[in-house]
Amino acid sequence: MDDPSTTLLAANQAFYDAFLRRDLAAMDALWARQHPVACIHPGWPALLNRAAIMQSWRQILSSPGAPTIRCAEPTAHLLGDAAFVVCYELLGDARLVATNVFAREDQAWRLVHHQAGPTPAVAGTDDPATTPPPGRRLH
Amino acid sequence: MDDPSTTLLAANQAFYDAFLRRDLAAMDALWARQHPVACIHPGWPALLNRAAIMQSWRQILSSPGAPTIRCAEPTAHLLGDAAFVVCYELLGDARLVATNVFAREDQAWRLVHHQAGPTPAVAGTDDPATTPPPGRRLH
Repeated sequence: MDDPSTTLLAANQAFYDAFLRRDLAAMDALWARQHPVACIHPGWPALLNRAAIMQSWRQILSSPGAPTIRCAEPTAHLLGDAAFVVCYELLGDARLVATNVFAREDQAWRLVHHQAGPTPAVAGTDDPATTPPPGRRLH
Repeated sequence: MDDPSTTLLAANQAFYDAFLRRDLAAMDALWARQHPVACIHPGWPALLNRAAIMQSWRQILSSPGAPTIRCAEPTAHLLGDAAFVVCYELLGDARLVATNVFAREDQAWRLVHHQAGPTPAVAGTDDPATTPPPGRRLH
């Protein structure tokens, strides 16, 4: 479990486990305290301080209409004492694509940033010929 | 110019300058070669290798319908030899919110990841009371 990719992907899964269980205390424990943090929920403006981010999770995790969420196809990208994971988020029939950035604090990976946004509902691909769906081509 | 936040924001601006000028060579030079890279264009699936990412930029920068783009409100988040910038992307009447992750290579900040997605057209805020627009609340 000391392999950094393994511990990184475990931390990423812990984030989605906390999300699925609507466990605000576990969610709070996963976010960094020694580094500044940021969070971009889909369709929200960027939240740039820890209090605002935790308030957003309180709101999201307590919402009776919150969908169940499952993480799919996570990939680990190590950058020394920082790292990021790219993964899909499956929410019922919807699919989002997410970036989760982590930094090491006290030997553990802690979240410093999360961004999720819409992506096509088809399976992911890194085929160079991939093109965006019509009308979604903002860049 | 050796202040890491200053050099980081300069590298982030160089990315948007290359985008605005449709300068594929400059764009290619900004992306990391020693670290693995990833890229999530708005509405696209995640691209997870450098060849696919450069092919996507070739396609985007050569498109006659590509809008002009301007970076607004960039914030620097340093994580040692890695870092990320959160900023807005203004494209005509549309506004996106983006995460750009950088790593140091040969003393310079190089892009290792970019994600952009939709955000409300109003001014950014980190007010804890901020709520997403109706119908956009995927989480």
